[in-house]
Amino acid sequence: MILDLAKKRKTVRKFKREKPPIEKLLKCLAAAREAPSGMNAQPWRFVVVESRETRSQIREICESAEKSFHLSVRGELGSWLKEKGFTWEKSFLQEAPYLILVFARKDAPFSKESTWLAIGYLLLALEEEGLGTVTYTPPNPGDVARAIEAPSNYRLEVILPVGYPADERDKYERKPLEEIVSFELLKE
Amino acid sequence: MILDLAKKRKTVRKFKREKPPIEKLLKCLAAAREAPSGMNAQPWRFVVVESRETRSQIREICESAEKSFHLSVRGELGSWLKEKGFTWEKSFLQEAPYLILVFARKDAPFSKESTWLAIGYLLLALEEEGLGTVTYTPPNPGDVARAIEAPSNYRLEVILPVGYPADERDKYERKPLEEIVSFELLKE
Repeated sequence: MILDLAKKRKTVRKFKREKPPIEKLLKCLAAAREAPSGMNAQPWRFVVVESRETRSQIREICESAEKSFHLSVRGELGSWLKEKGFTWEKSFLQEAPYLILVFARKDAPFSKESTWLAIGYLLLALEEEGLGTVTYTPPNPGDVARAIEAPSNYRLEVILPVGYPADERDKYERKPLEEIVSFELLKE
Repeated sequence: MILDLAKKRKTVRKFKREKPPIEKLLKCLAAAREAPSGMNAQPWRFVVVESRETRSQIREICESAEKSFHLSVRGELGSWLKEKGFTWEKSFLQEAPYLILVFARKDAPFSKESTWLAIGYLLLALEEEGLGTVTYTPPNPGDVARAIEAPSNYRLEVILPVGYPADERDKYERKPLEEIVSFELLKE
């Protein structure tokens, strides 16, 4: 059931070394493919990266930007990162056996909206297959896109490291339903 | 299974008059609530509109903007709308027994991305409950937001009319998986 899968699913940043069969990922991507999109443009593209070399390269590209970001970040986000123990290190980019890079075609109507909706499908499908991931948005998506030779009309939306989960952290708490749902009027 | 649900799910613009129990909607919203979000901000707010009066009012607000939009639209989108038989009329806004208005808190990090990911969860949950919907994005979201007294720090992302499906149209075709998935490099 969707509700059970959704409840069970949590962010995973640590992965087992064992590599899941590619068929599992393709099955999940086949689910994402079914999502609706503006003008049925299906603006999403998924790039599956398996090679150790490319994963290391992507990690380096992201971490170099993360270093500057973490030096400069202030305010609420800064405190949150510190509290949660997040640093510039993104070892999951190399440790996960797969990276799925999700792109959106820039000129399609509602391309960001459609692509993230499809990412919602993808996360639930991965959970069902027993696979973990985290929606990692690098500070420098354009640099990563260039590294895998993405045409300039595609925007990198997210990197999903994928593998069997080995993350002990609990799922973050969710707000009570009464706080996010109201009737007739938007009440805070 | 997610893949089966995703395949089965199609856009629904016509609804039966019978009103589904509200518990079904709340169960689906409980699934959406479990989605991940930037900084775990959970920037989404869901407003369930049941009253006939408010649904009519929202329909009027949207259709008045749709009329201007349809008069002015050109190019690829214009041809697509004509081909599919879409006009300024949005009777589903009144005919569906429920509208779910989905908002995103503007100042949360990645609020659009997170909210659309949660919409992905929501669509699959609705499908599982036997409920249909269409992701309707009005040309004038701000006008609709004001009508239900949304605070100005919330952005209306989508209106989801919800009810038992009575739409004969087939699901739109999807691109083959090979066209949207590539390995190591983004190939078009």
